[in-house]
This record gives sequence, C-alpha cells and structure tokens, in this order.
Amino acid sequence: MGSNGRPSEDSLIARFFAPMAGEGGLGLTDDAARLTPGPGHDLVLTVDALVERVHFLPEDAPGSIARKALGVNVSDLAAKGADPAGFLLSLALPGDWTESWLAAFAAGLAEASRDFGCPLLGGDTVKTRGPLTLSVTAVGQVPSGRMVLRTTARAGDLVCVTGTIGDAALGLKLRADPAWAAALTPDERAHLADRYLHPQPRHALATALRDHAGAAMDLSDGLAGDLAKMMQASGVSALVDLDRVPLSPAAAKAVETLPDLLDLAVTGGDDYEILCTVPEKNLDTLRKEADRVGLSLSVIGRVVSGHDRPVFRMNGLERRYDVGSYQHF
Amino acid sequence: MGSNGRPSEDSLIARFFAPMAGEGGLGLTDDAARLTPGPGHDLVLTVDALVERVHFLPEDAPGSIARKALGVNVSDLAAKGADPAGFLLSLALPGDWTESWLAAFAAGLAEASRDFGCPLLGGDTVKTRGPLTLSVTAVGQVPSGRMVLRTTARAGDLVCVTGTIGDAALGLKLRADPAWAAALTPDERAHLADRYLHPQPRHALATALRDHAGAAMDLSDGLAGDLAKMMQASGVSALVDLDRVPLSPAAAKAVETLPDLLDLAVTGGDDYEILCTVPEKNLDTLRKEADRVGLSLSVIGRVVSGHDRPVFRMNGLERRYDVGSYQHF
Repeated sequence: MGSNGRPSEDSLIARFFAPMAGEGGLGLTDDAARLTPGPGHDLVLTVDALVERVHFLPEDAPGSIARKALGVNVSDLAAKGADPAGFLLSLALPGDWTESWLAAFAAGLAEASRDFGCPLLGGDTVKTRGPLTLSVTAVGQVPSGRMVLRTTARAGDLVCVTGTIGDAALGLKLRADPAWAAALTPDERAHLADRYLHPQPRHALATALRDHAGAAMDLSDGLAGDLAKMMQASGVSALVDLDRVPLSPAAAKAVETLPDLLDLAVTGGDDYEILCTVPEKNLDTLRKEADRVGLSLSVIGRVVSGHDRPVFRMNGLERRYDVGSYQHF
Repeated sequence: MGSNGRPSEDSLIARFFAPMAGEGGLGLTDDAARLTPGPGHDLVLTVDALVERVHFLPEDAPGSIARKALGVNVSDLAAKGADPAGFLLSLALPGDWTESWLAAFAAGLAEASRDFGCPLLGGDTVKTRGPLTLSVTAVGQVPSGRMVLRTTARAGDLVCVTGTIGDAALGLKLRADPAWAAALTPDERAHLADRYLHPQPRHALATALRDHAGAAMDLSDGLAGDLAKMMQASGVSALVDLDRVPLSPAAAKAVETLPDLLDLAVTGGDDYEILCTVPEKNLDTLRKEADRVGLSLSVIGRVVSGHDRPVFRMNGLERRYDVGSYQHF
C-alpha cells in the first residue's frame, strides 16, 4: 500500500491483472511483453478506446465494460481473418475507484479473455481526474498475405452479414424507455439491451473469412455507414434489399410497432457483426462454415460498379443513407 | 464536416494522421494494421498512457506532448533490446480541441516518428468530457529469444546507466520556481526543463544492449525505485556509489546549491535513460558501442547477492531509499 493508503500500481497489477496474463505477458513484471508470431504469419493490430458516458454508462456492470472493451477489438481481428494472439490494456482510473469495482472489472476481463482466446500481454494503469477511460490494443495473426481487407470488394460479389442487425442501437434507445418499448416482452427488451452491452465478436468465423470472403469489416458504426466506407475503399457501390437485412424477433417487433425504427437499425452502431463480400461461388462453403460455428450468414445484396453511395431498396423505393462515421468531433 | 460543423473522425484521420502512416498502416483506411515481423524475430509490445495534468500540463506544447507519448514507449522498446517497428495511438480528445492544436500535435508526432524510426500503424480517436488522454502502444522486434529482461541480473555484474540522472525531476520541480533555481543560469534551467518535456529514447543502443547487457529496463519511475524493482525481479541486490551517479552540470549545480536535491535526482521519475547490468567482461565493448552512437555509459555500482533493497553509499554513509512505484492509486 502506498503512503496514501491506496495500493501502488505494482500491487494493483499483481493482484488484479497478473493472474490473467498469457505466457508472453511475462507475469506483467517486465516493461514490455514478448510475442512470438507463428512462422510465415503476419500480425494484425487494432486499438479501440472507450470512455465513460461516451461508450458506456457509469451504471453498467464493470464486467460488461471490460468484456465490451476486449470484444470490440477481437471483433476487428475477426473481420480481418485474424486469430487472436493477445491484448494490451491501458486503463485511466478516476480517483474514486473501489476495490470491488476493479475486482469485478478484472473478473469480467479474465472471462472474456478466456472466451475469446486472447490472453493479456501487458498494460498501463494511470490516474485521471476525468472519466474512466480504457484503451485496448489487440494483436492477431494470419498466414502471410491473408489479412482480409476493406479494399477488395469486387462488382458481382454478394454482400453478406452475420447475425442480426440493429439490436444494439435499439437496445441503447430502450434505455430512454420510449413508447414503442411497451410492445416488447421483457425477454425481447432484455435481448436488445444485452446486445448493446455484450458484443459477441465473431472470431469463430475468422478462418472461413480469409478463405472465402472478398472484403470484410466489422460493423461498429452502423450497416449503412460501414457498407458505404467499404464500397468506397474498394472503388465500387452496392445494392441492398432492405427486407433481406436480418432482424432479430425483438428488432422485427420494434420495427413493426414503429416502422421508422428500421432506419435506426440500419444506421445505428455497435452491431459487431461481420460485413463481408463473397464471390458467389464461395457462398455455400462460407455458409456451411458459419453454420458449423453456430452463426447465421445472410445475403443482403450485391456489389455493383460505380462510385455512388450504396442503395437500400424496399417495396420499389430506393434510398441512400447519408451517413458516414457517426463520431463527430 | 459533420452535422455539428466539426470534422468527422474519418476526415480528422485523413487530414492529420494518414500522412504519417507506415506501410503497415494501410493508409489508416482499414480497421486494423498489418505488421510482418522479420523471420526469426520476436515482437516486443509496450503501452503507456498519458493524462493531462498527471503526465503533462495543459500549457505544454502539443508537439512536445506527442513526442513524449511516443518517446516513453520507444524508450521501453530500447531497454528491451528491440528495434521499433511501429505504434498505435489512442487519443481521447476533449470537446474544446482546436485545429491548430491538433495540427501541432500531429506535426510533433510525425517528427518524433521519423526521429525514432517508428511509423504510425493505426489508432482510434474518441471524444471525452475529461482531460486529454493519450495511449500509445509501441511494437518492436528482436531476434528470437533475445529480448533483454528485468530478471537476468546476476551477482557480480556491473550496474550501469546511460546519460545523466535526475534532470527531468529537477526540471519539473523548476516549474514551481524554487529558491535554488536562482543559482542556475538560464541555459541550465532550460536544460532541465527540456529533459522533462522531451525524453530522448535511447533506441540507438538497442542492438548493443541485447548483445552485451545482462538485464535492462528504462528509467521512468526513478533510479532508486526502478533499480529496486529490477534487483527484486532478478532475486539479487545492488551496491551503488552515489557519487558515481552521473549528473548533468545543471543538476550538479542544483545539488551543490541544495544538497537534499540529490535524493530527488535519484528517486524522481522521467529520466528515460537505460538502467542495465553488464558482465564485467562486456563493459568495454558496450561502452564503445555507446560512444559510437553518442551516448555516455556510467558504471554506478555492482549487483550483489541477497534480497535487501539496493544500498546507495556516499562518504561512508549508506542509505536505502524506501520507494517503489511512485504511482499510487
């Protein structure tokens, strides 16, 4: 314990974080971690920061915050076809942290680390006078030259997504207790809320993506905006059938109650599903691989030539969503 | 520009950060970076976070903040014998950022990136309602199995440091304009202030360290505390001659003016020099290598058997500094 009665950084690390360190973390006793990539492999690196009141709420369970911080990074790796190799955590703690909060945070992080097969390699813990701020850097590996990019969508390929779209955005909206929520059962509301709180990175699909997908990215800023980014990066456009965008039963009921919610589902963030393009000849194989790991894969449209924003069609109407990154500065 | 008249995250990245991205950064247009390690190499990873008013002051030049954030990480890599391969930046920006601030920050970061040979690989930029918070993850590489650890100091080895000790701690102290500062010339004060603001990572010594050092770490939390950590990690102790601890002319004059400042020099943080142990037979070669890259290397003591805290001796007096990590939570 330090002179102010609080633990030193070293004792905090030893107690809460060292137990989940992977082999390369050297017990978190050194200044740096060691990672030995497999021969003939590239590394894939990604970083995502989460700030209290921007990316999560103070009342969220600490274990959920931890799982989300790691999950959104593992989701990025998965979309790139990379298998998780480990992560580093940078944690800025406000002065009023409690041991019970940190213990729950560490427990949630350790559980997520096991679930995602992504061991802790190292980190840094500092004080802040501001909100709790976390930054996770995740490292994955792929066989050399096999990282799945955003730039490799080709006209004629199918546009596919895993899972269901819009649940997380609706789950966040639910917190304001809107009128449409009354139409949902408690289970349906819980489903949507959980999808916001607990992103499920699709790392089980990483190998299949690098074997069978054209381009891929994970959906963090909303289907419409992220698809537009991927098409732009690849120099192509896309036609999407809105009625083929997969909705969960809860989201479908919400949209049925208030049809405008479909726009929220398609533009809202935090899905953490995989958006990918697939050459038609690869679809059956990729779908079988998805089935095998318990994931649904839906074809929602097709890549087309051109440089316009992707078009979303339904009932003979066409619309382009004028959204880019939702994060404005 | 977003609907609120501020640039979107994408345009901010394209304008300020994409120009400094290395090849593996893929122009910062993908969700993740790619890094291809040299065959037969291990990667070394480290992360350090910096928070405004904790690790730097709001009035510090934005370019200095950027250089420090990258420098302290490259310093960690250097101490591990690793050559920089690239870095990721996580940046939490308060709402009142200005374009001129960010432009100066990016310019300083780009310059440091070139100076240290450490290209930008990727990053994340988010909003915060709190203080500016930065987290840098740096990646380096070493030939397999050659990372220099903390745990490999052996009794009989010499204890060495690069450069001079205590300048940064005295430089920070200067900001409060203490009485002893009057004894220093403007140039001496500027030297100390600069050493706090602009850590100089000793990456030029990385190769020589992995060839000739026993154990090594960079000095971030003060010589006394960091030496104690390294000796503890290696299961040994050390005897240090305080009068062999290298001081800059400015620091020596400060200590001459107020002898108690020697304790501050020895326990204060932010030196970012290399602390290493060296088998006696390797000293000449390591010193030659240090000379070659323009660094001084001073022998300050010797590793000894035992588990006590290192002893610092001067004028027949012995003292143990009861310091660990200075960061208390």
